[in-house]
Amino acid sequence: MNAVEVLRRLAEEKPLVHHITNYVTVNLVANVTLCTGALPVMAHSAEEMEEMEGLASALVLNIGTLDSRQIEAMLLAGKTANERDIPIVLDPVGAGATTLRTRTAERLLSELRVAAVCGNAGEIATLAGLSAEVRGVESLTGDAREAATQAARALGVTVAATGPTDYVSDGERLLAVENGHLLMGRVVGSGCASTAAVGCFAAAGGADPETVAAALAYFGRAGEVAAGKADGPGTFEPRFLDALAALADDPAGVEGSTQIKELKRG
Amino acid sequence: MNAVEVLRRLAEEKPLVHHITNYVTVNLVANVTLCTGALPVMAHSAEEMEEMEGLASALVLNIGTLDSRQIEAMLLAGKTANERDIPIVLDPVGAGATTLRTRTAERLLSELRVAAVCGNAGEIATLAGLSAEVRGVESLTGDAREAATQAARALGVTVAATGPTDYVSDGERLLAVENGHLLMGRVVGSGCASTAAVGCFAAAGGADPETVAAALAYFGRAGEVAAGKADGPGTFEPRFLDALAALADDPAGVEGSTQIKELKRG
Amino acid sequence: MNAVEVLRRLAEEKPLVHHITNYVTVNLVANVTLCTGALPVMAHSAEEMEEMEGLASALVLNIGTLDSRQIEAMLLAGKTANERDIPIVLDPVGAGATTLRTRTAERLLSELRVAAVCGNAGEIATLAGLSAEVRGVESLTGDAREAATQAARALGVTVAATGPTDYVSDGERLLAVENGHLLMGRVVGSGCASTAAVGCFAAAGGADPETVAAALAYFGRAGEVAAGKADGPGTFEPRFLDALAALADDPAGVEGSTQIKELKRG
Repeated sequence: MNAVEVLRRLAEEKPLVHHITNYVTVNLVANVTLCTGALPVMAHSAEEMEEMEGLASALVLNIGTLDSRQIEAMLLAGKTANERDIPIVLDPVGAGATTLRTRTAERLLSELRVAAVCGNAGEIATLAGLSAEVRGVESLTGDAREAATQAARALGVTVAATGPTDYVSDGERLLAVENGHLLMGRVVGSGCASTAAVGCFAAAGGADPETVAAALAYFGRAGEVAAGKADGPGTFEPRFLDALAALADDPAGVEGSTQIKELKRG
Repeated sequence: MNAVEVLRRLAEEKPLVHHITNYVTVNLVANVTLCTGALPVMAHSAEEMEEMEGLASALVLNIGTLDSRQIEAMLLAGKTANERDIPIVLDPVGAGATTLRTRTAERLLSELRVAAVCGNAGEIATLAGLSAEVRGVESLTGDAREAATQAARALGVTVAATGPTDYVSDGERLLAVENGHLLMGRVVGSGCASTAAVGCFAAAGGADPETVAAALAYFGRAGEVAAGKADGPGTFEPRFLDALAALADDPAGVEGSTQIKELKRG
Repeated sequence: MNAVEVLRRLAEEKPLVHHITNYVTVNLVANVTLCTGALPVMAHSAEEMEEMEGLASALVLNIGTLDSRQIEAMLLAGKTANERDIPIVLDPVGAGATTLRTRTAERLLSELRVAAVCGNAGEIATLAGLSAEVRGVESLTGDAREAATQAARALGVTVAATGPTDYVSDGERLLAVENGHLLMGRVVGSGCASTAAVGCFAAAGGADPETVAAALAYFGRAGEVAAGKADGPGTFEPRFLDALAALADDPAGVEGSTQIKELKRG
């Protein structure tokens, strides 16, 4: 589905998107979800995972500040999501940096039926079994294009490797998204936030490469608009939320401004 | 007490307001507390609950991201607050959405002497035993006016059901607060933040319906000021904190701009 | 090292700074780290402490929302930091307010080799064994200058007592930093954020009094720049991040604007 279609559907349905996410960027992630047109809920308590998931239209798992209780909650919520057949979007933050993160991402991918994985080039390369350098939660090296295709093939899911150009693949198709702005890399959580946008789009339009690329194009387009009004990374963030909301309110504004290229047809 | 009186007292006394709250909106809640003139402290460790509460002038309990350890901390802090006779303000975030949240709100209300409950129409209706639809943490239906009165009667506390119009009742009196702006509903945490303002006002002026309504009017008035300077939900939030601080610094600015109507006298 | 030298080195090396910190100000702390030129990572899980620390160039411990699992993580990460000889910077948030906080700060200082301690006057006075009044996490009284010198002597580390004037001492030398703006005290987390800046500077330049004072001067200078563009505490925060990033991008802008006085030579 393209961005305009998804945004219209989001405005109409206001689906609940459940995030089990890190405490660093959780506020930004929630605001991005709300600005995009979905209703965010952040909940991590094992006691309410099944029930909360019963209300949700998508589940976003972000391992940015992982601990054992959170892993348990992710598995519980994920199982309910799978039973209800709602899409799970995984952001493997810091996979490749520590064993805990790499193993947890792998475990979630093995025990749950994940619909899409979104991460930076290093994280995605790690999951594809390619070599990569991840310093903390930042990717320092890695061929995003190759990583996306290889990981999608290895994992059998849609994979987005985000960066200056985002690459989205299901192992067959490969899409490149050119929207975005350098300032986005200077704000903590822009990766988490782009995964949240993918989660919202998945709630309304599924997680095929076209819809995932549309989410990233919408997200990147908002970044371009915001960068034109910001004086630095600090003023960028509020402007970015404004831009996301404005595009969601008037999806026609997205039309013609998305830069998605089909590099390889499936 | 009216808003001007409370804000003057806050500026003079700088009371400590202790929040046990969710990690999604905690930063906004703390900044709202500080801008309103109180000193915020966020602490949740069982080991320091009694001691921290011994320093506080109000306790705000927000169940937005609940887990078992947090419930224990809320009960410990609440008991000390009751012993010291300082007001407890409860925000039953997501009551009605999951059993954990509904039961925990009920448990806190049964085991502690709560002074005021602030929530959206659906959450308050749930606590009043009325039917309501709560999707995650958003209220989708519910008659806020009826919910506030019924819940206040059922629980024997001051209740605020917030929304486009806020209704405040102690079961006898019913006040309506018309201040506010639509943009507030597009920012994650404006509900939590309004409860924080009620907590600050309670620290200085108690939790009778007049003081709770004054807090919501002050809060809503800041929203009106901020909306005039914002381009969307992103730029709204910093403008909103500016407006809260400006009104707290010069409480005379609140006078004449609060729109509180007494719908029913006690 | 002076601020210009450190900022140039940070831009070149992009060191990883690991924070174990509170969930109230964690987003601001991460953004300050990124704007200053380092890569932030927030992680607290015991399972990944050694590994994450193996990648880091500095460790910042902030006890603002302490619990037992976090203390365990701090000790684990700290031991690895000590083995690898990377600097540990401690922010004893709320020391003096509750026994848990005072004892934990003391325990960290006794079990780990800490390079620098940064806190407000009341917190630092508490660690120096002087009398002080700390309400929650705010210092109400305390002679920052005396506290810094006494604490540095008692603890054998570099100590910064921050406030309208920041004092930095290693027990022998005493430096005063006059940069800053009153608005900084009206934003939640400016203390945590200044400690984060010290952590970044320590990653590139160590934790001697000159480098710590340089970090605080850089931080305060950004506050001055931001205050000139802000309408209140809300708009101050994004402007502040802009200013930090602009000074980090062009360190020459810091030169000539830092106000550091040597009050006592070692």
